[in-house]
Amino acid sequence: MRNTFGNLFTLTTFGESHGEGIGGVVDGMPPGIGIDLEFIQNELDRRRPGQSKITTSRKEADRVELLSGVFEGKSTGSPIGFIVRNTDQHSKDYDNMRNAFRPSHADFTYLNKYGLRDYRGGGRSSARITISRCVGGALAKLALRPLNIDIRAYTSQVGDIALDRDYRLYDLNKIETNAVRCPDAETAHRMEELITEVKAAGDTIGGVITCVVRGCPVGLGEPEFGKLHAQIGAAMLSINAVKGFEYGKGFSGVSERGSRQNDEFVSTNGRISTLTNNSGGIQGGISNGQDIYFRVAFKPVATLLREQNTVDTAGNPTKLDVRGRHDPCVLPRAVPIVEAMTAMVILDNYLFNKTIK
Amino acid sequence: MRNTFGNLFTLTTFGESHGEGIGGVVDGMPPGIGIDLEFIQNELDRRRPGQSKITTSRKEADRVELLSGVFEGKSTGSPIGFIVRNTDQHSKDYDNMRNAFRPSHADFTYLNKYGLRDYRGGGRSSARITISRCVGGALAKLALRPLNIDIRAYTSQVGDIALDRDYRLYDLNKIETNAVRCPDAETAHRMEELITEVKAAGDTIGGVITCVVRGCPVGLGEPEFGKLHAQIGAAMLSINAVKGFEYGKGFSGVSERGSRQNDEFVSTNGRISTLTNNSGGIQGGISNGQDIYFRVAFKPVATLLREQNTVDTAGNPTKLDVRGRHDPCVLPRAVPIVEAMTAMVILDNYLFNKTIK
Amino acid sequence: MRNTFGNLFTLTTFGESHGEGIGGVVDGMPPGIGIDLEFIQNELDRRRPGQSKITTSRKEADRVELLSGVFEGKSTGSPIGFIVRNTDQHSKDYDNMRNAFRPSHADFTYLNKYGLRDYRGGGRSSARITISRCVGGALAKLALRPLNIDIRAYTSQVGDIALDRDYRLYDLNKIETNAVRCPDAETAHRMEELITEVKAAGDTIGGVITCVVRGCPVGLGEPEFGKLHAQIGAAMLSINAVKGFEYGKGFSGVSERGSRQNDEFVSTNGRISTLTNNSGGIQGGISNGQDIYFRVAFKPVATLLREQNTVDTAGNPTKLDVRGRHDPCVLPRAVPIVEAMTAMVILDNYLFNKTIK
Amino acid sequence: MRNTFGNLFTLTTFGESHGEGIGGVVDGMPPGIGIDLEFIQNELDRRRPGQSKITTSRKEADRVELLSGVFEGKSTGSPIGFIVRNTDQHSKDYDNMRNAFRPSHADFTYLNKYGLRDYRGGGRSSARITISRCVGGALAKLALRPLNIDIRAYTSQVGDIALDRDYRLYDLNKIETNAVRCPDAETAHRMEELITEVKAAGDTIGGVITCVVRGCPVGLGEPEFGKLHAQIGAAMLSINAVKGFEYGKGFSGVSERGSRQNDEFVSTNGRISTLTNNSGGIQGGISNGQDIYFRVAFKPVATLLREQNTVDTAGNPTKLDVRGRHDPCVLPRAVPIVEAMTAMVILDNYLFNKTIK
Repeated sequence: MRNTFGNLFTLTTFGESHGEGIGGVVDGMPPGIGIDLEFIQNELDRRRPGQSKITTSRKEADRVELLSGVFEGKSTGSPIGFIVRNTDQHSKDYDNMRNAFRPSHADFTYLNKYGLRDYRGGGRSSARITISRCVGGALAKLALRPLNIDIRAYTSQVGDIALDRDYRLYDLNKIETNAVRCPDAETAHRMEELITEVKAAGDTIGGVITCVVRGCPVGLGEPEFGKLHAQIGAAMLSINAVKGFEYGKGFSGVSERGSRQNDEFVSTNGRISTLTNNSGGIQGGISNGQDIYFRVAFKPVATLLREQNTVDTAGNPTKLDVRGRHDPCVLPRAVPIVEAMTAMVILDNYLFNKTIK
Repeated sequence: MRNTFGNLFTLTTFGESHGEGIGGVVDGMPPGIGIDLEFIQNELDRRRPGQSKITTSRKEADRVELLSGVFEGKSTGSPIGFIVRNTDQHSKDYDNMRNAFRPSHADFTYLNKYGLRDYRGGGRSSARITISRCVGGALAKLALRPLNIDIRAYTSQVGDIALDRDYRLYDLNKIETNAVRCPDAETAHRMEELITEVKAAGDTIGGVITCVVRGCPVGLGEPEFGKLHAQIGAAMLSINAVKGFEYGKGFSGVSERGSRQNDEFVSTNGRISTLTNNSGGIQGGISNGQDIYFRVAFKPVATLLREQNTVDTAGNPTKLDVRGRHDPCVLPRAVPIVEAMTAMVILDNYLFNKTIK
Repeated sequence: MRNTFGNLFTLTTFGESHGEGIGGVVDGMPPGIGIDLEFIQNELDRRRPGQSKITTSRKEADRVELLSGVFEGKSTGSPIGFIVRNTDQHSKDYDNMRNAFRPSHADFTYLNKYGLRDYRGGGRSSARITISRCVGGALAKLALRPLNIDIRAYTSQVGDIALDRDYRLYDLNKIETNAVRCPDAETAHRMEELITEVKAAGDTIGGVITCVVRGCPVGLGEPEFGKLHAQIGAAMLSINAVKGFEYGKGFSGVSERGSRQNDEFVSTNGRISTLTNNSGGIQGGISNGQDIYFRVAFKPVATLLREQNTVDTAGNPTKLDVRGRHDPCVLPRAVPIVEAMTAMVILDNYLFNKTIK
Repeated sequence: MRNTFGNLFTLTTFGESHGEGIGGVVDGMPPGIGIDLEFIQNELDRRRPGQSKITTSRKEADRVELLSGVFEGKSTGSPIGFIVRNTDQHSKDYDNMRNAFRPSHADFTYLNKYGLRDYRGGGRSSARITISRCVGGALAKLALRPLNIDIRAYTSQVGDIALDRDYRLYDLNKIETNAVRCPDAETAHRMEELITEVKAAGDTIGGVITCVVRGCPVGLGEPEFGKLHAQIGAAMLSINAVKGFEYGKGFSGVSERGSRQNDEFVSTNGRISTLTNNSGGIQGGISNGQDIYFRVAFKPVATLLREQNTVDTAGNPTKLDVRGRHDPCVLPRAVPIVEAMTAMVILDNYLFNKTIK
């Protein structure tokens, strides 16, 4: 419940923004999988700060070290411990956070829950801890490789600028060609401009990430509480700053009639599929072989580079003036996290499903 | 993962639409709680079919029997087994479902996953199995009573007819005064008319349920994977027909600037709260003492009372003409389920939080 | 942790001695398994009281009713709920237990833990609740049938009367030919005489059950905390009245040298096995294909049909004079429970192991 | 199930004998506990090789580094990651193990289960991985300190040399005064002589560790599958080389009558206790406030410093001649592991019990 994710393929995480490092343990990695270290590091690099002018200028080397579970280049079935050492820490930047509660951050709730808190850079609540998820997700992706399951996330909305067409009308191979990770170059350009503008104002902006899973076999997901979309939804909602999740037609489908939204079954060359895919690839909580697609809402980053009113731990009014290097928009760097969490859910369910075969 | 929900307060469910009955086991019920059987039955009655002309005309008595864990009117700390016998079963109505896959139902995915299926009334995938959740939720509500935590769900949208104001502007005591369970009488009336119209056309319609938790103490929820909203979201997404979840500002907040969306801390009479509540009562995954509110999207019911094209289990095209008694809109009867799941999540986290105090 | 056993094949139980009934939910039953109701009932009958003059004379019909998860004679992959109604309850017999703590029973600890207790017949702590384990074990045995894994438990010691030879020197097909469930007729006779004598004195006696698993494939068990023998041991120690567990050479092997106890590997017709089996079929926590065998120590039943000194709930000295019908020796009726728990552990690990194949 | 231990206080471990290091993550550490690093290191030192002439001469520095979850000297409630780097590795010593199966080791079962194995020093099956348990146990002990729960383990038997009196007749403060960790100096001396003799012969010897928990509050343990002794038993049986577990009177009590073994309740100054403690401090699976005591059987170490017959991975007969530095008797170094596992179980149950208060 606390810091472990998954059932058969599990990720247990540890680490704080300004502690020794961020790390974790992946358990349940199937044995005999080739461990491509370069790929794992590359996945980490995708979430790394300082990639472009629209992300924070912090330079974090963020080199991952695998500590166990790999022998002669392959997974052994033993748990894979890993660590990414913290290096570029400006703890001084956070001295003014010692006694003041940052608005819409976890400062107040942590202190109340635990009675004390590591205030440096948000401690455990920092988005930096998603590093562990990247590593777990990269390992999951390696295990999914032979199954030809393809997971692609992209920024589909920043502020009011949104892609308005079906995901199949974009070339998902272009996601990584721009800083904002949007498959449409023109929209990406406008998103970047908006982020730049927001950043100049010391402000922040939210957006939406869309994710598509192609090649998922029929049968993943558990009917009652472990519906596949419930698991994916929980995974997404556990990512920092996420405020909403919808799959298939989602919220927009509630005003439609069933006669319009039902997906008609058809058979082509002996393979049963559906004419439409309003269901989003999941029916009754179980994957049906169609593309799985869903959308994830991210709020604007809570850390502003401008003065804000707040109270201190004693309840006295105070001003908060955060310095430091922060993202004006979390979306571009959250794209790999969305993929990582999705990969772990899919692999976990794939392994789970093997138990009934 | 499969049929058990929760960590410390758990509900394990069993049952199919046309089997012997629907039931479950609640484990972790704190000892010494007064077990108000009438209240539990009343919660069940709220989800019962045949309550009004806008729900299915099936008459299900649905009497719950508690089998254990209660002694002299109080919970003992032992697991509470319960059963609701199936009685009003028209299995004949489902003979045409034996070989045909109902569109947007779980027929196809179940058969592929398990290799066989109980096709009568959808079997395990029937919404009838939410009976167990009602009972579990009623027990959770009884345990929450002394804590003065109040959970209210209501229908906020049916098709295009939506309540457009903040939940605080409605009188939530009026929710149960109309068949659609909407706190605004005039809107409720229009929703009912829409449902009646849709029903007459043999069609169905979706909608949105809003839920508000008042009086939740500060500190519930776990920071990393067990964020309170991730747990609530997973609970909601595990309800039949749910396609989306958002809390606080949700999807609508993504286009706002952080400077507008951040909730400023203030102190009043020594109690720290926030001026606004865009966060939806949860910060960093932990309740902050403000109201928790969220929205749940339901798709239109997949069972239509009109002919639909589909394929049979052999892949041959066929027509499906469902008879029987079905809901044109699931929202009114889903309101108590949303509350039940929320109550279980809140209680579970309340118990979990006691371990660090 | 509380009332659920297992990881992938799980049994969740409920019920008290004098409540409505004893039941549970089996989750994770593989789909497509033939559900032989007669076999399940027969397994229950093996633990039933009143089978012979050396067990309690209570007549409990103990008919099991499966409530879900079975369709047209086969498991569907959905959870199997079941119940055995309580019928032959002499609640009056227990009135004197309301305020007095029975020595070496759970009365004192339950009351202290929960603040109240169902004192009738021991409530949740009654051995009657092992009914649920019998049903769960019977279902596990049905799933293990096609794998040719054979599980046999027998009474190997009662008081000082013990079988002193290797299990391979007894005909395990003769276990069910006598009331005490000992494969050696002559020893069985002496055990029965001892039990009869003890019973006449209003006293009770303990003993040892030996269990052998033949045909277990190589590879079951998890190396670190889920060692196969640790799981089996936990299962055995969760049975009422069990005080000890050992496998392979167990306690008797501690005084031997490694050179004598190591099992030499040999290869016969391309199949690797061990010359001896001091390891008890498990090495490094993982089954090695040899017979798994272990021994389980049962204390004498705590309920005596003679007067005992104790205190009441207020701490005042009092006399306890238990009436009713009780077992002088729990061993014969515990044999099927040992098998049931073992079957569930083996199946659970078999399913778990499929996830890495 | 795999590499995580516990429910609310959990230890997840990773590492192999000759990999980068041994480590883990402790989750559920209550916040605000003083983290005494020196104490933790000292606990580690107790299991360290090379402490005396009767243990292996390997010199392992084994310095533990805590990576997270501690701030300004106190636990924060966040997970505590830790690592002990491997340093004194003689991988060359293990080259002859690449293809040969060591008798009574996990080589054969690992290779069959996973299809590959890290053969260096036993890899994941090495007793070196108990380092993680020491660290987890040390943290648990720190959390138990304010509760005055005292846990003491000692070597009570080596080969045929056994302490034959009740644990209360020994001064447990003398356990650490000799290399074998036996509270009786004279017996300890004879044990050491036996170990020295066995070592000279290139052989090994087993024994028994006794553990006593004093000051455990009433009410820990869960009645059905989570009986306190079942949890402790599983913990003990998960330690390398353990073959048996018994608590209270254990196996020796099976031949006694109930009238002799029942523990009579008495009340002294308003506090209810038992005259005798044959139950071993646990009744109905729940602690009753008396001392908890149990015994753990360890087989002789499987690694012999003499030639043994075995087969290679292809099934061909071969000779195994292990070099390197190994323990002739695991008992002295296992004493802190027994304590560590016990501490984690007790703390876990203490936290669990808080949820019903």
